[in-house]
This record gives sequence, structure tokens and C-alpha cells, in this order.
Amino acid sequence: MTFPVRIVEVGPRDGLQNEKSIIATAAKIELINRLSQTGLRSIEATSFVSPSWVPQLADAAEVFSAIERKPGVSYPVLVPNEKGYERALAVGAQEVAVFTAASEAFNRKNINAGIDESIERFRPVLERARADGVRVRGYVSTVLGCPYQGEVPLADVVRVASRLHALGCYEISLGDTIGVGTPHKARAMLKAVASEVPLPALAVHFHDTYGQALANILACLEEGVAVIDSAVSGTGGCPYAKGASGNVASEDVVYLLHGLGMETGVDLARLSETGLWLSALLGRDTGSKVSRALAAT
Amino acid sequence: MTFPVRIVEVGPRDGLQNEKSIIATAAKIELINRLSQTGLRSIEATSFVSPSWVPQLADAAEVFSAIERKPGVSYPVLVPNEKGYERALAVGAQEVAVFTAASEAFNRKNINAGIDESIERFRPVLERARADGVRVRGYVSTVLGCPYQGEVPLADVVRVASRLHALGCYEISLGDTIGVGTPHKARAMLKAVASEVPLPALAVHFHDTYGQALANILACLEEGVAVIDSAVSGTGGCPYAKGASGNVASEDVVYLLHGLGMETGVDLARLSETGLWLSALLGRDTGSKVSRALAAT
Repeated sequence: MTFPVRIVEVGPRDGLQNEKSIIATAAKIELINRLSQTGLRSIEATSFVSPSWVPQLADAAEVFSAIERKPGVSYPVLVPNEKGYERALAVGAQEVAVFTAASEAFNRKNINAGIDESIERFRPVLERARADGVRVRGYVSTVLGCPYQGEVPLADVVRVASRLHALGCYEISLGDTIGVGTPHKARAMLKAVASEVPLPALAVHFHDTYGQALANILACLEEGVAVIDSAVSGTGGCPYAKGASGNVASEDVVYLLHGLGMETGVDLARLSETGLWLSALLGRDTGSKVSRALAAT
Repeated sequence: MTFPVRIVEVGPRDGLQNEKSIIATAAKIELINRLSQTGLRSIEATSFVSPSWVPQLADAAEVFSAIERKPGVSYPVLVPNEKGYERALAVGAQEVAVFTAASEAFNRKNINAGIDESIERFRPVLERARADGVRVRGYVSTVLGCPYQGEVPLADVVRVASRLHALGCYEISLGDTIGVGTPHKARAMLKAVASEVPLPALAVHFHDTYGQALANILACLEEGVAVIDSAVSGTGGCPYAKGASGNVASEDVVYLLHGLGMETGVDLARLSETGLWLSALLGRDTGSKVSRALAAT
């Protein structure tokens, strides 16, 4: 089992959006520019959701306009609706990401809409993106559990993922938002979705809340998944469990993959330097054990 | 793939021996007594190595004499040689553990003896233990890498492990002392050893220095291993990389196993309480992500 794996670095968006202290626009730009030099091919740069929802990323347009976009690297940005899409397009985004949850309760609580209604909200985004030649990635969250309804039926995950794929998302990222999953469950979920959506169009997105992320990733790699979301330095935390761990750290994922003999194109030493720079900026220990070990030796 | 798994809790020995601040004897006793109430069946209690080597565990005899030994729970203690064995026997130990490394360089640096000589040193322990009806567990360290020689040939791991088994160790714990291993390598190592030593006599012992421990454990479970060493609260650190992570946290291993549908007999909530009590005592954050998440919710 070895094949090349693409890392989708979500630190600048999914990581930073959950950080409490306000981060300077210049620092966000530097973070993305540093990440661009590590060999990563996908870096989610920011989010064009309403600043009242996510004040941390209110400077999305400014950040996106200022970063050096390296040829061969994709810089997707999150958009919640047509308005966000227009803001993203105005600064030259060539890839956007839309999102919904597999949990009915999560959607209702978060965006006051059921799953079907949430999909209807971004259907115009997908239509316009197709006409504009903009690629669209789709996030499905709460695929292994929901903070409100607990269990999430596999059938709901499959239905939402295949719906997004049918609507034109070239890739569907399956997210364990609260990090409760374990490897058999992760693998069963992935297999179920892959029965409806081609495996090459699937990515996995694990949070390390219960320390299970790398084990879950291993199980999904064994199932053939070749795209993995992660955040440098393991930024992010968990809004449903204050003080808990955040996204799985990119450094730890890259170490795993290289150890498995799988190519990522990423320079681990440079990535780790960037992670340590970021954690110093955030004023706390890195969430990457690899970076902690590299810094210590 | 589901079968019952036995956790060997090594926190009171392998965890605490690497802790800098001196821990009160009463606290060590309380830790072991608390662990005894969690459903664990093997708790490595202390070490009878020379106090000049490991000052933290100089109170081994006092600790072992004072703990409440719960029926059905085994309390192995580490012994380096005949003298340590005698001290352990004097306080009523019924199980001891001997240790050597698969790396020639590691042995020379640590105990100033080659592998063969180190085995000769505890051969009398194994002979006397057999006569005394004392069970002996064997540790093989540096099975996936060595801080001094780097790569450790698989053949050396196999040779040392089968030697210990032939000499009478009922169980051989294969340790990634510096936590550098990744799943394919861990699995290949286990398979190689299992070609010479029956799999039910093998345990795995991972340090989480590079965050790979749970992924490695998953790979070894898939290979059929049913005994896992871990330390509550992930105590221990790494003497070869200051500030790096220590033993894999027992709470995170139990969460993984229960999520996989594998019985451990361990009450995770109680184990986590004990881990949080210990980390408060040590004056730092728990090394268990599960405990951090449980404490946060």
C-alpha cells in the first residue's frame, strides 16, 4: 500500500478561525506564503463567511489579495453562499469550498436550516462556479458524530456526500468535526460513501480531539483514500470542547505518510519550521508532536 | 477484527522514572491503588534498578510493600540483575521484568555491555525466577530505531526477542523507545518477531514522540497483537529529546480499543480521572487527548 497523497492544508482557515486572539493580517499572509514554500499543493487560505460569524477572518479579501500565489498551488477559500462567492471571485479566487453537515441537528443549530435547505443555499454557488470555471470543493461535517444529536446515520453521510458530488463538487472532504471517531467506524463510513462517490473524489478531515486522528487516517489510507486535510501545528481547538485538541497536525500526517513510503511532495523540515513559527506567534506550544520532537533534538 | 486486549499500565514505572520533580512515596502508592480500581489487570509498579541510576524510584521497596495488591491484578517490577531480583522478592513481588535493547550501541551506551552480555547478566534472574515460581516479562527496547546507531536491523530484534522467550520470559514487550516508528515498519517488525516467537507471547510498547503511537498500535492489532503497554496521562517524556512526548497515554489506547469493539475490562472514566489527578500532581497538562477532551466537556 503506497501511493502519492495530497495534503490539503487547512490551517489558515479551519485552524485560525477557531483561535481566540486576533491574528494580524500580515501574519496570516506570511503564514500562507511560508506554507507555499513547503511543497504543499493545496492551501485553504481563508473564509468569506460573514465577519459577524467569524470575526477572525474578517480580513479575507485583504489576505487573499496580498498572498503570493505560487504556480501549481491551489488556494481554495470557504464560501457559505452566493454573496461570499462574489466576494471571493472579486479578489480572484479560482477554487472555493462549500460546506454542510451530515447531521440534521448540527445544521439546524449552526445555520438554522436543515440539510436540504443548506444545500439549496449554495446550489447557486455551484451553478455560477461551473459557468466561471471555478473549482468547488465540498465539506461534509459531523460524519462520525454530532455534538447535538450524537450518532449520525451512515445513510445521511452517504446521501449528503453524493448530493454534493452530483451538484458538481470535484472533491468531497468528509469531516469528523468533533474528533470522536475510531478506525473501524472511519473505514466503514469511507466505504459507505465510496459506494456512491468515486474514491478519488474523496478526502478525509480528522480532528484530534480524542487523539485518534492518525489511526483513523491510517485506516482510510488502507481503504485507498489519497487526499488528507490537516492544519500545520494542529491549530484550531474544538468549539464543542474548550481546551481540547484541534485539527490533526500536518507535520504529524506528513511524518506518517513518509514513513509509510507515500510521497507528499512536502518538505517536512520546512513545514515544521512554519508550524513552530506559527505556534510562537500564537504564544503557545505547537500541537504537532513531530515539531515538538524536532525542536527538542 | 475484535478480540480482548490486555493493557499493561507502565505509568508508575516507565512514566514516573523519567519525571524530573521528585514524587512523594505516598503519591506513588495512591497512584497504583487508584489504577487498581480501574479494571486494569497488569500494573508495572516500580523498578529495582540501582537508586543511583533512577533516583525517582529509590523508594521501590517502600512503594511495593505499601500498595494494596488487588486479587487478579499483576504488579510486575523491573529488575536489572540478581541483586534487584532479590530486593523485589524480599517485598513479595510475584512478577518481574528484565530488559535489554535490540541495538548494540544502545546497550553499550546505557549499561556498558553488548546485547549478549546484557542477557547473560539477567540469565540468573530467569533461572531463579523459574525456581521461585515468579513470572518474568522481557522488554526489548529500540526495536524501530536507536538514538545512537539509527537503524536497528530486524534480525537483531528477532534474535533478542526469541532469546528472551527461550530463556523463559512468558511475554516479550517490543518497545519503540524513541517513538520514531510508523505503521508499516511496526507491522513488519512484529511479523518478523512473530515468525520466531508465538504471537500471544508478544506485546507492543510505543512512545508517542512523533505522534505515531496509536497508528502503530492499530497496525499491530491488525496483525493480531493483544497486549499493549501504555502509561496513564502519557507520562514519561523522552530522555533523548527533551520536551518531547512520552509513553502513549493509556486513556487514548483504551478509547481506541473500545471504539474498535475490543474489550479491555478498563473503566475509561475512572482511568481518565486517575490520569487527571496525576497530571495535577505533576503540575502540568495531561498527555492524554481523551482526558483533555473529557475534562473539557
